[in-house]
Parts: sequence; structure tokens; C-alpha cells
Amino acid sequence: MATEIVSPQPGGNASEGVTAGTKTPVWIINATRPSQGVGDVICEDRTVLSNKVINPALYVTNERKIMVAPAPILDPKPDEVLLHVKVTGICGSDVHLWKSGGIGPQRVESTYILGHETAGVVVKLGSNVRDFKVGDRVAVEPQMPCDQCYLCREGRHNLCQGVAFSGVYPTNGSLQRFKTHAAKWLHKIPDTISYTQAALLEPLSVILHAINQSKLSVGKGVSIHGAGPIGLVALVAARASGAYPISITDIEPGRLEFAKKLVPTVFTYQSQRDAIPEENAINIRKLFGAGVPSQVAVTENEYSAPITCLECTGIESSVATAAYTCRRGGSVMVIGVGKSTMNNVPFMHFSLSEVRCPVVCIISTHYAQIDLKFINRYRDTWPAGIQAMKGGIINLDALVTHTFPLEQADEALTLASDPSKGSIKVHVVDDVDVQIVGL
Amino acid sequence: MATEIVSPQPGGNASEGVTAGTKTPVWIINATRPSQGVGDVICEDRTVLSNKVINPALYVTNERKIMVAPAPILDPKPDEVLLHVKVTGICGSDVHLWKSGGIGPQRVESTYILGHETAGVVVKLGSNVRDFKVGDRVAVEPQMPCDQCYLCREGRHNLCQGVAFSGVYPTNGSLQRFKTHAAKWLHKIPDTISYTQAALLEPLSVILHAINQSKLSVGKGVSIHGAGPIGLVALVAARASGAYPISITDIEPGRLEFAKKLVPTVFTYQSQRDAIPEENAINIRKLFGAGVPSQVAVTENEYSAPITCLECTGIESSVATAAYTCRRGGSVMVIGVGKSTMNNVPFMHFSLSEVRCPVVCIISTHYAQIDLKFINRYRDTWPAGIQAMKGGIINLDALVTHTFPLEQADEALTLASDPSKGSIKVHVVDDVDVQIVGL
Amino acid sequence: MATEIVSPQPGGNASEGVTAGTKTPVWIINATRPSQGVGDVICEDRTVLSNKVINPALYVTNERKIMVAPAPILDPKPDEVLLHVKVTGICGSDVHLWKSGGIGPQRVESTYILGHETAGVVVKLGSNVRDFKVGDRVAVEPQMPCDQCYLCREGRHNLCQGVAFSGVYPTNGSLQRFKTHAAKWLHKIPDTISYTQAALLEPLSVILHAINQSKLSVGKGVSIHGAGPIGLVALVAARASGAYPISITDIEPGRLEFAKKLVPTVFTYQSQRDAIPEENAINIRKLFGAGVPSQVAVTENEYSAPITCLECTGIESSVATAAYTCRRGGSVMVIGVGKSTMNNVPFMHFSLSEVRCPVVCIISTHYAQIDLKFINRYRDTWPAGIQAMKGGIINLDALVTHTFPLEQADEALTLASDPSKGSIKVHVVDDVDVQIVGL
Amino acid sequence: MATEIVSPQPGGNASEGVTAGTKTPVWIINATRPSQGVGDVICEDRTVLSNKVINPALYVTNERKIMVAPAPILDPKPDEVLLHVKVTGICGSDVHLWKSGGIGPQRVESTYILGHETAGVVVKLGSNVRDFKVGDRVAVEPQMPCDQCYLCREGRHNLCQGVAFSGVYPTNGSLQRFKTHAAKWLHKIPDTISYTQAALLEPLSVILHAINQSKLSVGKGVSIHGAGPIGLVALVAARASGAYPISITDIEPGRLEFAKKLVPTVFTYQSQRDAIPEENAINIRKLFGAGVPSQVAVTENEYSAPITCLECTGIESSVATAAYTCRRGGSVMVIGVGKSTMNNVPFMHFSLSEVRCPVVCIISTHYAQIDLKFINRYRDTWPAGIQAMKGGIINLDALVTHTFPLEQADEALTLASDPSKGSIKVHVVDDVDVQIVGL
Repeated sequence: MATEIVSPQPGGNASEGVTAGTKTPVWIINATRPSQGVGDVICEDRTVLSNKVINPALYVTNERKIMVAPAPILDPKPDEVLLHVKVTGICGSDVHLWKSGGIGPQRVESTYILGHETAGVVVKLGSNVRDFKVGDRVAVEPQMPCDQCYLCREGRHNLCQGVAFSGVYPTNGSLQRFKTHAAKWLHKIPDTISYTQAALLEPLSVILHAINQSKLSVGKGVSIHGAGPIGLVALVAARASGAYPISITDIEPGRLEFAKKLVPTVFTYQSQRDAIPEENAINIRKLFGAGVPSQVAVTENEYSAPITCLECTGIESSVATAAYTCRRGGSVMVIGVGKSTMNNVPFMHFSLSEVRCPVVCIISTHYAQIDLKFINRYRDTWPAGIQAMKGGIINLDALVTHTFPLEQADEALTLASDPSKGSIKVHVVDDVDVQIVGL
Repeated sequence: MATEIVSPQPGGNASEGVTAGTKTPVWIINATRPSQGVGDVICEDRTVLSNKVINPALYVTNERKIMVAPAPILDPKPDEVLLHVKVTGICGSDVHLWKSGGIGPQRVESTYILGHETAGVVVKLGSNVRDFKVGDRVAVEPQMPCDQCYLCREGRHNLCQGVAFSGVYPTNGSLQRFKTHAAKWLHKIPDTISYTQAALLEPLSVILHAINQSKLSVGKGVSIHGAGPIGLVALVAARASGAYPISITDIEPGRLEFAKKLVPTVFTYQSQRDAIPEENAINIRKLFGAGVPSQVAVTENEYSAPITCLECTGIESSVATAAYTCRRGGSVMVIGVGKSTMNNVPFMHFSLSEVRCPVVCIISTHYAQIDLKFINRYRDTWPAGIQAMKGGIINLDALVTHTFPLEQADEALTLASDPSKGSIKVHVVDDVDVQIVGL
Repeated sequence: MATEIVSPQPGGNASEGVTAGTKTPVWIINATRPSQGVGDVICEDRTVLSNKVINPALYVTNERKIMVAPAPILDPKPDEVLLHVKVTGICGSDVHLWKSGGIGPQRVESTYILGHETAGVVVKLGSNVRDFKVGDRVAVEPQMPCDQCYLCREGRHNLCQGVAFSGVYPTNGSLQRFKTHAAKWLHKIPDTISYTQAALLEPLSVILHAINQSKLSVGKGVSIHGAGPIGLVALVAARASGAYPISITDIEPGRLEFAKKLVPTVFTYQSQRDAIPEENAINIRKLFGAGVPSQVAVTENEYSAPITCLECTGIESSVATAAYTCRRGGSVMVIGVGKSTMNNVPFMHFSLSEVRCPVVCIISTHYAQIDLKFINRYRDTWPAGIQAMKGGIINLDALVTHTFPLEQADEALTLASDPSKGSIKVHVVDDVDVQIVGL
Repeated sequence: MATEIVSPQPGGNASEGVTAGTKTPVWIINATRPSQGVGDVICEDRTVLSNKVINPALYVTNERKIMVAPAPILDPKPDEVLLHVKVTGICGSDVHLWKSGGIGPQRVESTYILGHETAGVVVKLGSNVRDFKVGDRVAVEPQMPCDQCYLCREGRHNLCQGVAFSGVYPTNGSLQRFKTHAAKWLHKIPDTISYTQAALLEPLSVILHAINQSKLSVGKGVSIHGAGPIGLVALVAARASGAYPISITDIEPGRLEFAKKLVPTVFTYQSQRDAIPEENAINIRKLFGAGVPSQVAVTENEYSAPITCLECTGIESSVATAAYTCRRGGSVMVIGVGKSTMNNVPFMHFSLSEVRCPVVCIISTHYAQIDLKFINRYRDTWPAGIQAMKGGIINLDALVTHTFPLEQADEALTLASDPSKGSIKVHVVDDVDVQIVGL
């Protein structure tokens, strides 16, 4: 894969290539003299660059390849703004769209641009936009629902089937320098919130949405299943909500150590690969001082068993483990859906065989009146997330283990796709300084 | 257990026998039907029968046999009353306890008395009972929770693990003439509610509890899966709640005809045994004017798809059908759990194979943010059920297709266990007239 | 006030006046030859009528006068449609806007057109409209929220401060023949729902929104305070929801008789003008079999006291009565706000004087943990209302006591403003048949 | 006021056994030889002490006097335990019962013992008690509901009208050394929680119950009205729940300083006595970056206005201020009810006069669909409170500004009743070491 991106260099010219010698080259876009409709670029020294140079983008193809290549700069429609994307986080779903060619029914049918965990700065306004001005720093809510269907009218934008979602085919995402986005789904951030933090508002939103529908509150127990990026965000958010005790599980001890550093009071449990869900569940419950869920006699300690289980792996056995871990009347929030391992296996195959399950069985779990809730995206979470970051309630900075410049976005995705690298959250950062002239 | 009750003694003079004991009660049973050799009793004409006939009961053994045999009459403890049981309905779980020797983890370990859908009249008060008087007509809430555990303190009595449940081993049930029960779990009924109706409050409670936790309301769609007794109660209650449209499904056309007579505006659908859940679901959705759930474009009509699905069969494929039927953001209430067919099969095995499922798949259902709620018993439902019956909001009389006298309770259970007989609800009625003297 | 409206008559011309000789005169609007920007009218015989003839409208002025006068016909904007308004109901707020010159902070600052309980037929589509076609019969949701603010993003459109509300200054309403409206806020109605019924969906929506946030369900008690149009709609909807017992109160016995005919099982109570709220409340509670709310001992019957109180008068003493009527843990839904009597009196002045209040006092009410909920407009109610009407769950036809043709809309408003006339709901109907040619 | 308490004195005959005299005298109670039914006391050296010595108690009389005097030691009933009370906090309601002779309808009709914020240790078990053993350290839930009424059956114990509440007439409270209490309403505490902390679980429960019914969550704004003990507990709990921004108001700058030390990120506002509620509300809203609530145009910042207002003063003008402070669709939780200033004033008298209220008025507040929720006691809060303290989520230690030994409980109450002393929470501590022999 060859990327042909060149960066600006004062004194150089486009044809010679503009190597990225400086940290903050200045792009000056003068749209008063558009050529071919999408704007040429004038460098500080008035060198005219071709359009393709200034908007490098990470494309994925329907042949499961990725490449960094130039993208056109679009003019914002009346209700849109043009953003200079400062930071985009890599999500497991990006890797999935690349490696599996889709998520569930959503297939990658042709080449397009990835990216949906996004922060940036406004560089041009559409004609109808009144609430933003050039220079506003914003976090990007990647979903742009249809605003017409009955679900949108109910405010359940997260369920809109006609949604255009940044970075999910066929909607181009934010792994490019310049992206248009509906102004309605941008959220201003204060100066005290960095672009890095603002890009983390997307995974935080997934968790805030789940927590909003859960029974999590001060002094109530919560178990988190999976210590990947989403599980770790869940850990921080659960702690910020006052939940206690909190457990987190994973098969990788390194991730559990990471979790323990992030929230020292968390109880960690390394899931046993060859244990049945019931066994793992009982071990987790012991961390809470609770016992075997099917016992007739309930001890006082059963109270502390998790009333909310945040399932962040999407793996069948983990969902079952969460169900066995949950206390009576609690909820299992299935957040991690759509991973490849879910595609061709039964979603939930709970065996009731007495041989396999000597102590607990599905019947007793049923009787527990446990809700299974399947969470889809988010609604009404960015403003609260911004306030939580602003007030120091939530800080996710430690999750960003790797950063890459935009021109190396393909390397960022490659690293994120390799579990052996131990990355948590990989960020693609574009710290060039853009000035727009004459728009 | 020794009973303080002294019954009329064979061989004695009736008046002597009745008066001899200090606190000696006189049981005068005015039998409109003569007993058929099942014991002795004192009839109105002072004929003396033996004590053992006074309290015929339906026993089930741990060898999966049933029999009608005399039971002791217990004296009510301080917080209990002694009831003359007037009507007990037969539930599918009674048949299950008999034929399968248990329900889930709850096994029949020795001989005991069945029965939990109960109405009766108070014949004696425990020493602490203040809120009832002899002669009060009551509906019986069969669950007697421990009142000590954290779930009871929360008011979630239905989740109490230490519950004593009438008719579930080892707690004797109401398929006997005289039963003691905690006064706290009795509910007075007005004269306008018959004992037959009062005994139907138990299955009604199952449904009211499910509805209370659902999103069912005026003008919202609901699908009911299964047209057995619980499904038909659900149908009546959903109609009474103002839900519309309502569908009901079953594999037996006779049950669907019954449903249509009960609620003429219901849409009925005969489930196809050899169809996959997705196909059945799409056919049900057509009744609502809704389309294929995975379509990207949502028509206005999708709004009318069921926001609540009441699953009343406990059969795996039916749970899957309900999940595919539900609209985005809706809830599948799994009410029918514990049937034998659930014991050794996977609970939910949703295939994602494109061959099997050309139009919908589990992923799109997940994305719909559908809740799966598992309902256990009931709480705070009898008073509302009584008011609903009193006000004519709910009338379930038509469900009672067969009645048997108490002495033939075994025949009642046998009939109820035979699907070919077409019974809906079988009631065991004890219409002897009991007068207690001198208690 | 003189109305200059003329109706079409083949062979006549506009200046002579077009008397309404036939039931279904045909207006043919040909917009291909606009004159003065808003379109002339061509009758069947090609007679050209002046624009002012074809769109009579009911105006209210900032000098508190009303008049029927011609209005311009607007061309629909891209996201709008042009409607032929078939029925508009008169609301108490229309009278209030006329007589008081405003509602709360919303003042009538210049002449504009009233009307917001609306049904009609689509006669022209804006350029972006895809979900409707000419001839679609629709109910009109009068609120057009800004769709940009945080409340709209949450789906709480009813709280949007930037809303344009049909018939509330400065937004022209539907008391005219031709009105433009945002397509998003129109709801198709099936053939089985009349325009009359469709216009009643607006007051029904007020009640459905209140009920959605209340604790009303099958077999739970509800008290309705006020038997005006909103109170009567509440009565029908509460009955359709399965609530029981239901009480309704008013000072006018005629309205209570009307209520009793509408829902025969309702308990009616004539409020005593000179009684304090506590006394009226106790009398209402007696209808439920409940007692004095402050008594320490709770009888079983207290259960049946209303858990939801729907306050539909907006009168201070009635709000207080509702608060005293409500059972512990219940909710008082304050629906009737904005009436003139609320403007200059204390909202809620509960005296604790022992002289005035020998049996109950605010303290006991506080301790009851009663919620006071103030309801504003509606959200997500039209689709459910349409389904409820379609399924026969809700029928409000009996509420329409008077109808007037559009040209006499001023008489409709005058009648509705006179309590001595005994009107419940007054409808303005426009049954002319409009055909649009060449748009 | 004369207290007749006899403490172990060096030189007395008690002193030989109990001489410790200093911090930890040892009371040895030998109940095997009771005299006069309530047990004399035998010291280690077998000296018999009179009963009155060993159970000092703080009495309040119906003549509004308080005194420390000996109380009988009761034997626990079958479902009770006998506690050695270690710590009791003084509540504003204790002062109120003393100074005003009652709270609302609950009057002090004769002499009894105060105290309901309680922690202690089990010294004797009733015959039915299985879940506790002598030596268990416990927090005391002071409410002992009837467990029979429909509200108790619903789990709404906090609304039970038949409740016996520790320290509210006629139920004796915990301001004594030895108190019996129902075992069901005791909660074991781990060793890491001190008795001081355990006694703070009662005021914490008031707040947790309010928060459980509020819309408070991570990143949502909350305003707290009143910085007394309850307001400060609310502050700590709101912070622990992740709320942000948080404001707190009071008229005393000293309390605001205290609040700022407790939670440095809080915004404080000194309420202006001579300002109308609207003015105070606008000033508070400015702290959130929000504007005047009646403005038509909603800025982005309006989002951060408090969605939950915790009213902790019970003062009329403060309730009004909270209502004006709240954002649209929010809730005002009225927690501080029952203070003397509420008795003879209108509960809520919102003036709509344009002169008094140039910028906001009740109508616009109504339209905001704000809920007014009146909170009564608590339910299901001790276990969560214990877990929150155990996990370090909640720490209220700083609130205890003064402590007194039990024998000086009258001085504790006197100090707490004097606002000039600047006390926040006053604790009565009994650190004698009790050993029970032969019970």
C-alpha cells in the first residue's frame, strides 16, 4: 500500500513533495478562487497546492484493504460545517469493517473512509448554521439520524434505521483532514478539554447510554466483563457513578493490571478459558462476598452481588457468565455486540445438563427476573460527557496508549488490529495548523 | 403436626361429640352432594361421619403419582387463618410437578398437596389476626415470602428465595378443603366477585406483573405468543389496557378460534411448525401493517409493530419469533418459563446463517435495543386485579372450560394434562356448605 | 363583523358573490398562472376568482377582536405541504387568546389566525416531501419544534422553547381553508377515521401524554378534576386504559350527567363551591371506599384511593383538592394550566390552620410522598391515538356538541366562549370539495 | 433541668467494680437474677447497682423540656435484639420535637426518649433472631413499619402510616444506653466502618432515597438549596454520584465555606434575604452558565442548568427559588419539610405580578414540565450506604463537629439547637465498654 500524501513545506512546492519537516505547517485555504469546485490550497508563500495533497484519508475497500489516499474536500451543505479533524480514535469496529468486510448486515460494498471517534475544529459554516462560528472546537456525534421517522420523533435517534453514521459504509468517516458534518450533531467543548479527550467522548457515550438504562447507582455492585477499551471506559464511568463494589474480568492479565492502575479499588478476575460460565460466575461473585446464586438461603451478603452487569466482550460464554453473576432483579447490559466471534455461533446457548452444571442452572437464573438489555449506540450523552470531563468526574487520558499522525493512519489501524501489541486506544492525530482565508 | 381441632367422634352422639371438647369445634358440613365414602363428617341431619372425610386433598408423590386422600386439618398459627377452599384452578405447573417430578431446581421429594390458584372463605382466625373475620371471602396470594431478606425489604417479594409457595414442594397447596394461610397474603373480595373469578386472580397476576414492567399502553401494539391459559389471560388484560393492535399466535387453530371469541378485534396467526422464527415473525408483523424488520427504510406503519411481545409458551422457537416480531426499542417479556421443553434444549439459538435467514438476522435485532425480560411470579397485583374484576374491566369467566368436585381433583388434573381434551382452565370446586360452630 | 366570504357557483363571478348552493362546490386552484404571487383560482368553468375568496380565516387581533377575513394561500416550503383544513376544534386556549390577549407570557401582539386542533387533506407537496402524496388524509400535530436545541435532541419536543405552535402568536393556525405545515408533524389517518375524529387527536394527545407519565394502569384508581372537554377526554382515556375506580368532579351537574353517559361506571361528584379542598377531597375519597387521608390506621380500602389525580381545571382550589384526594405515593398531574384564574392568584396556598383544617393538613400530604407533575403539551402521542381510534379503543365522537362552517368560525368561537350554552367541543368544518389542478 | 444520672464514681461501692472511671468503665449485666422485672446490675465484684444507673436516657416532655434520666432496660421480644447504643446523631427534627412539641400532626403527648440516627452493638438476642449474634456491630434503620398494609406489601415501607419510628412519639428512641429494636431493621457494618460513620447512615439514607428518585447522574447538573447537615450530605452524595456542575446555597457564608472544603469543585451562592426567588434563581443559574429561564431562545449552555434541585431547607422562598432554578423537564425534590417555618405560612405562593417578576413567571415554569417530588424517609438505602462507605465512595466524617458523652445528651441537644454555635452534626457517644454476663 502506497500513500502518496505530501505535507506542506514553506519554500517547497507541491510537485516536489512537501515532507513533513515541521510540526505545524500552515495550510491556508482560499476558497475565493475555487478550481474544479473543491478548492485549491494556497500555502503561506502563496504556492498553490493541488487539492489531493491537503486531505489525506484512510480508506477501506470492499476487498478488505486499507490505504491512505487523498480525498476531496467537500463544501458544507446549508446545515453542515466543514471541520478540520484533529483527533480520531480507532475502534474495534473499524478493524472489523476492514478485516471482516462489514458488521452484521452492514457490508462494505465499495471504497470509503473510516473513522467515528472524532474531535475537530470548525473551519467553514454552511449557510444555515447559526450556532457555531469558525474556530469553535467540537466533539463530533457520529450519528446523523434521519430526523423524520417515528423513532427520531420519539427522541430515540440511536434506533433510527435511516441513520448516516460517520465511518460506516456508505458514509465517509473522520479519518481525513477535512470532513463535513451536520451542525446539529456537533458539541462545543471548553478550552479545558483537549481534542484527545473530546475524541474519547464517543466510547464514553456508549457506556453512559448503557449506564443510563441500568440500575447502577451509589453503593450498588457492578460487574464489568471484558477489560478492552469499552470495558475500561465502563470501569471509569462506573466508578464515577459511585458504584461499589466493582469487578472487572478478562482473560489477559495485562489488561487486568491496567484496570487496577486505572481504578485501584476494582476487583479483578482472570477468566478461566476452560471453565464453564457458572464456575467463572461463582468466582466473580465471591469477590463481592456473595455466594452461589441458586442457594435457597440468601445471606445478607447476597445484597452486594452486582445488580448491573456490563457485558463488553460480545463473546457468548461471557454473556452467560454475566447472567450467572447478576443478582436477582438485576440487569445484564449487552454492550459488546457485533464482534466477529458472534457471527456464526449461537448467541446464547445455556446448557441445563446436570453434568455440566451441578450448582446453578438457567431455571434459577430465569426465576431471578434478570433483564437482558441490548444497547445500541447512544442518545443524549455528549453534553453529559463533556460536563463530566470538564468537572474532572471522568478522565480517560490513560487509555490512549498509541498515537499516529494522520498520514500514518493505516499503521494506526494495523497496530490496533494486533492483540499482541497490547494497545488500548490508538489515536490518529492531525496537529497541522490550518488557517482558512477568504471563505 | 397435632391439630387442636377436635372433630366429631364416630360412635358418639352428635351433640355430645360436638359439645364434649372444651374448645371443641363442630364441623357441620351441609353437603349438597353426599360424600362417596371418603370419610366421616357431621351432616346437617346430624349424621356422623368419620373425621378423615372432612378434608379430602389431592396429593402428588415423588413417584409421580397423584391421589385424593384425607389430610389433617391444621390449626392456624397466630398470623394465619384457616380457610375453607372453595375453588382451585389447575395450572400447567401442577401437571408439570406431577409428570416431571419438579420444576427446574425445585423437585418433589416426598408426598404433598398441590394447588395454588385459590379462593375460599375464612373459617377460623389465628390469635394475632385483626384484619379478617370468619366468613370473609378471600382470594389467596400463594406466595408467602420470608419478609426478612433484602429483596423482601425492597418489596420485591416475588424474588424472595426463602418463599413458601402454596402447592410447590414442600409447602402444601390448596387442593384440599381446609387450608391454613398467612393472613397477610389474603385479599378480601366483594360479593360481586365469585370464587371462580377470585381463583383466576392468580394467573391474572402473572400477566399484570408482566404488563406492569412492559411498555404496553393505549394504542400501542402487542403480540402474544401462545394461546394457552396464560396467553388468553394476557389477551384479555392487554385489551383491557387499551393496547391495539393485538395479535395472538398458536399452533392449534381451535385455541385461536377461542381467542377470537374472547376478544373479537384480535389478529390471530397459526404458527407454522416447519417455518423458521424469522418467517413466522414476518407473517405476524404483516398483521400489524409492519414490514420486514431489517429493512433500512422504516415506513410509517413500522410504528404499529408490537412494542411489547408477551411470550407465553416457553418454547425456544417462540422466544426467537417474539424477538424478531418486536419493534425497535421494544421488550420481549418471557413469561412462559419452566416448561419441560425448555429443560434440555438451548435457550436461545439464533442462527445467523444467510441460507436460513435471508431477510433478518440476530444482528439487526440486537441493534434494535430490544429488552429481554424474564418475569417471575408477581407483586402488588391482587388488589388491582380485584378492582379490575369488580369494575368489569377484566372478565375471565369464559376461560373455565371444565369443573370437578374436590373429591375428583385427580380427574381434574388428568384432564388438564391431556392436550387432546381441549381444556383451557380446569377448576376444582368444593361447593359443600361448611359451618363452623364453637371455634 | 361582516364576513365577505363567497362560495363558488358555476356561472357566477366573484364580484357578484358565489352563494353556496351546492354541498360540494369544486374549487380548482391552478397555480400555473399565479397573480400577485399567491395564486388566483379558476372555477370549473374557468371563471377566475380572486384569491381572497378562497381562503377564509378566523383572525384574532391584539385589540381582542375576532373576525373572519380572507387570508393568503402560501406555497409550501421544501419540507412542508399545503393542506386543505377539513376540521378544526375550538379549544379553551383559543377563547383565552381572544378574551385575555394571551396565555401567560405569550401575548397576542398583532393580528393572526387561530386554530390548532386540526385535520385535513394534502393538496400540494413541498419539494423535499417524500412520505406524503396529494390526497393523503392527515391529523395535524400543531407543534413544530426547532429540532436543534438540546431538548429536541433528547426527543422532548414538547419542552422546546423555540417551537412554532399552530394558532399561537405569531404562528398562524388552522382556522382557514388552506394552511401550510411541516410534513414531519403530520400523521396519516386511515379511511375509518373521520376528520372530526382526527381533529380530536389533539386534546387526546394532551391526555395521553399525561397518562404516559402517570401511574395509571389496569385496576388502579384515578380521580379526574374538572368535566370540561379535557376532563372528559381524560375520562374516556382513563377508562380505555383499564383504570378503576374512576371519579370525575365538576361544579356543573350537567357536565357530570354528560360524563356519566359517556362512561357509565364513573363516579361523579359535584364540587361544593363553599367547601374547603379537604372537605371536597374526603367526599371524593368516599366514592373510592377510602377514608380520611391523615388517619394513622390504613384500611384495606385505602388501596383503592386514586394513585393518579388528573387535574383538568387549572383552578387553585381544585389543585389542592386533588392533592388531598391522592393516595400515598401517588401523583397529581397538573394538566389544566394557563387559565385566566391562575394569573393573579397564588398557585397553591395550603392552609395549615387547625381551624380551617381539622382533619388533614399539608404535613400529612407531604409525608405521603406525592408527586406534583406539570404537563406541557405532548410528544409521541398521535400515532398511539390514531391506533386507539382505529381499534375502537377510544371514541370521542360524543364530545362534539356543535359544528359550524368555516365561514362562521367567529360564531363557533363566540359560542364556545359562553359557558351558559353548555357546549363541550365546538368544531369548525369545511366540507367544500377542493381539487387542485396543475400545481 | 436536672439530670440524675449516676456515673461510676471512684470511692463509691460501684467504683470498686466499675472504677475505670475514665474512658472505659465496664458494666457487667447479669440478668440471671433480675429484680423488679427490669434487671439490676451486678458489677464484676458482684456489687449490685440500681437499674437507674446503667441506662441513662434523654427524655423530652410534653411541656417542651428535656432531661437525662434513667430508663428501664427492656428485654428483647422474639424478633428483636437488645442493643448497646454507641452513637446517636442529633437531628434538626429532635430539636423541633423539643422546641415545638411535635412535627406536623405528630405531637409529643407525654415524656419519651429521643434519638434516631443510631449505631450500636448487639448485646442480647430475641428468641426468634437467627441472623445476628451478640457482638455484631450494626447501623439502625429507625423505621419499623407495620409490614401488613398495602404499602408495606409494595415495599414502600417509607410510606407506611402504621410505622413505629425510633425517637418519634410514642416510640422511644436511641438516646439511651440500651435499646431494643426489630432485628429486621438492623444492618451489620464491617469493621472498617466506625460507629460514628454508621450513625451517619440515617441522614445519608434521606439523601440516597431522594437521589434514587431524581434525574441525577454522571455529568448532569444539580443545585442544592441549604447547606445545613442534610444539604451537606446531599453535596457529598451528589458528588459521589458523578453529578456536575453542583451548586449549593445558604444564607450563612460560614456554611458555604464548610461546603467548599468538603467538595472543592462545588459552586457556592449566598442567598440574598431581600431578593425575590426569581433573582436568587437567576444568580444560581449563572453559576451553571445558564441564563434566564423564560428566554425563548435556548442557548447550548441551558443544558447545564440543574436537572435536579435538592431542596433541603423547607423554607417557602427556597422551594420557589429551586423551581425557578430548575431546567425544563427537571425535578425539584422537596426534602426539607416539617420545619417550624412551614407550619403557618403558605406552602408555595408564587406571585405572577409583572412588577415583582419582570423576567420570569410561574407560567413559564409550569410550561417547563418540572416535577415537584415530596420525599418521605427512605427505603432500601442502608445496604447501599454501607457499601458506599466501605468502598470510600462516601465519607461524611467531617460533618461531625461536636461530640458529647451520653450523660450529657441534653447539652448536645442544646448546642445543636443554637444556630450561633455553628455546629453541623452533633453526636452523642457512649464509649463505655459493656459486657453482658449470663443473659
